[in-house]
Order: sequence, then C-alpha cells, then structure tokens
Amino acid sequence: MRLGTVIGNIWATRKEEGLTGLKFLFVQLENPDGTAVDSPIIAADRVGAGLGDKVMITNGSAARFVMDDHDVPLDSVVIGIVDSIDVEKR
Amino acid sequence: MRLGTVIGNIWATRKEEGLTGLKFLFVQLENPDGTAVDSPIIAADRVGAGLGDKVMITNGSAARFVMDDHDVPLDSVVIGIVDSIDVEKR
Amino acid sequence: MRLGTVIGNIWATRKEEGLTGLKFLFVQLENPDGTAVDSPIIAADRVGAGLGDKVMITNGSAARFVMDDHDVPLDSVVIGIVDSIDVEKR
Amino acid sequence: MRLGTVIGNIWATRKEEGLTGLKFLFVQLENPDGTAVDSPIIAADRVGAGLGDKVMITNGSAARFVMDDHDVPLDSVVIGIVDSIDVEKR
Amino acid sequence: MRLGTVIGNIWATRKEEGLTGLKFLFVQLENPDGTAVDSPIIAADRVGAGLGDKVMITNGSAARFVMDDHDVPLDSVVIGIVDSIDVEKR
Repeated sequence: MRLGTVIGNIWATRKEEGLTGLKFLFVQLENPDGTAVDSPIIAADRVGAGLGDKVMITNGSAARFVMDDHDVPLDSVVIGIVDSIDVEKR
Repeated sequence: MRLGTVIGNIWATRKEEGLTGLKFLFVQLENPDGTAVDSPIIAADRVGAGLGDKVMITNGSAARFVMDDHDVPLDSVVIGIVDSIDVEKR
Repeated sequence: MRLGTVIGNIWATRKEEGLTGLKFLFVQLENPDGTAVDSPIIAADRVGAGLGDKVMITNGSAARFVMDDHDVPLDSVVIGIVDSIDVEKR
Repeated sequence: MRLGTVIGNIWATRKEEGLTGLKFLFVQLENPDGTAVDSPIIAADRVGAGLGDKVMITNGSAARFVMDDHDVPLDSVVIGIVDSIDVEKR
Repeated sequence: MRLGTVIGNIWATRKEEGLTGLKFLFVQLENPDGTAVDSPIIAADRVGAGLGDKVMITNGSAARFVMDDHDVPLDSVVIGIVDSIDVEKR
C-alpha cells in the first residue's frame, strides 16, 4: 500500500457499468515525511475520505475487492484514513 | 486509475480471440494540470471516447472486467469520460 | 497495452510446465513515433509475429488469458500485429 | 519479491472491511547491500516483523493470498523475516 | 517476462504458509546484451537454476501459477533457464 493525501475530485458521468455512485478522488502519493512521490493518481473511495486527508491506497487488481461485486474495473482505492505514522529516521 | 487524453487510434487485424470488434486508443496519461506523464499507452474503449477526450484509465488485470467475458488479455481500458476535475494547488 | 517491435528470440528448454511449445520473443516497447521506451521485454506469442513486426503487448496477469488453460505463469503476450497507427501531434 | 527493512508503523482506525486487526508497517525496499530503492511502501504483516527487521515483501494482487479470506484489498505483505543473504559481487 | 542472471540466495525461516521448501534467488534483471536493469529482485525457483544462470522471470500475480496450489503470495518466479538469445542490433 502507499501513503497519500487527497488533493481533489474527478467526475465522469459516462462510465463503465458497476462504477455508478462511486466517488473518485485525486490522491498525491507521498513519503512518510509528506514529500510527493510520482504523479497524482485517481482512487475510488468508500471510506469517506475528504480533501486534505492522509489515506492508505491499495493499487492494482486487489483494489477490486473493496466492492461487494469484485468484477469491476478498479485499480486503485482508499482503504483507510490514517490516524498516525511513526517512522524511524534512517 | 489515471487521467489521460485520447491522442490516436491503432488497428490490428490479426489478433488474439476475444478482442475482435474492440476499439483501441492511444492515450497520453497526464497530471491534473494536463502535463504529460510517461509514454502513451494503448487502452481498449467501450465507452465511446474520441480524439481529444479526457478519460479515466484503469490499468492492469482489473481492466478485464469491463468485458462480459472476463477471460481476455486486456491490461488497460477507458472506464469513463471526464466531465470535470477539481484539484487543490499544493 | 503497449506498442512494440519484435527484435529477437529467446529459447529455454528447461522450463515450467504449461509453457512447452510456446514461442518467446524479445520486444522493444516504443512510442507511437517508434522511439524506444524502457528495456526490452520477453513476450509469449501465439499470433505468429516475426522479427521487425509492430505488435500490441498485454502485460501483467491478464496475459495468462491468451491460453486455453489460464493457470500459467505468463506476464507478457503479443495480442495483435499492428496494421496502422494514427496519432495526433500534440 | 523484494528485500526491505521495517522502518515504522502506520495506523488507520477507519478502514475497509476485512482489514481489521491487521498490522501495517512502513518498509524501505533495498538492494542486497542495504542501499534504499524507491520510496517507502506500506506492507501488511502477519509474520511478526518488527522495527529494523530485514524482510521479504510480496507486492501486487498476490499479496491477498496471505489471508484466509483472499478477497481483501491488499497489495503488499511481509512474507518472511530474512535470516541471511548471499550475493555475488558482479 | 524478463531476462536475468541469478546472483545469489536468500533464506527466511520464519515465513508465510505455503512457501515452505521453496528456494528463493536474487536475480539481476538485464538487457539482452547483459547490462543490468533496475535493482535485484527475489524470485522463487522450482526449475533448478543456480548461481550465474541466465533465466526467464515472470513477475506479478501470474507467478503464483507455478505452484500446484495457486493461492500463494508469490510475485516473481524463474520460469526457465535460457539456452540462447538472438537479438537484432537496432
């Protein structure tokens, strides 16, 4: 999984079946110290994350398993809202 | 998922079973501000996206689930045509 | 999917079950304008692609679905031989 | 799989079903000589790894198979605690 | 798939179920000309590859299918020992 921050929203009315009603967020992946990693991605969210929230993201085909019907074309989801992080300086 | 813009088409008559009749598009992945990310990819499209459209792309094995028969060798699909984006400056 | 050109062959007599008889090709992924992207990969081919052919490649676990028996350790396949490409200058 | 070192913990109370009770660790992937590779990732752990432990990490959808119920949105897990490494200088 | 050379071994006594008895190798991925690509990875091996052998590697969830029981957390395996390579200069 990856750490990230919710930075925005994206809307698409015309979309594939099975995705209706899902909320899609722009998420900037980041290091534990908050510096950005790579380009922003789009993650589905069912946990209720909002702008500025620190979140945990699952990428790839495993993302489909947040849905009751697993047979959906999702490759990125918010799986949790981060309470706290504790990382050692290396 | 990733944001992208449809930049072209690609045709292949000789291809694997299960892909007949599918439309394949070149898509340039991009940041929310429209700057290009990585090299163009080829995504299957069933939503009806056209040249210049902003689209949402699902990559990896999850892409197969846009098809009624999931057992197809697809790793990238258009899942939606973008209506609007709202991203915070960071 | 990705665009690529077949640049060679690779042979392995001692290999995992389920892969016997499959042809393996070196493929250089590339941009629509033919410039190389990343390092050459090895893709299984059942479509009949040959040296110098432009091909479409599916990567990841979805590649397994070109086989009648899907339970094979393949992560890259040729899914089509390209007839033509039409990409907009950006 | 990848080699890594456990560098911290992350907690999320509000999260997707099926992940309750799982421990999540920050892991810095690294080369056999211990130099860091890429940005830290978050891996689920059921093996009992602790801060500073060298671990083996499985990424992608295969990570789900550490759980009795495979239908969980996990893309990275600790699969073992490393006893020893023996790598040739090249 | 990717070309690589076996450069070492890694041992982990404490590990996830289903992985007992498997041999794990460090593999340096490489170009057809033998130059290194990316950082060394860890691949499971059932083919009998040894130090210095050129091997073909399957990455991602497809790697699980070398096992009789597919439900294992493996994301990289040796699928063959390379006999010969024939690549065109470009």
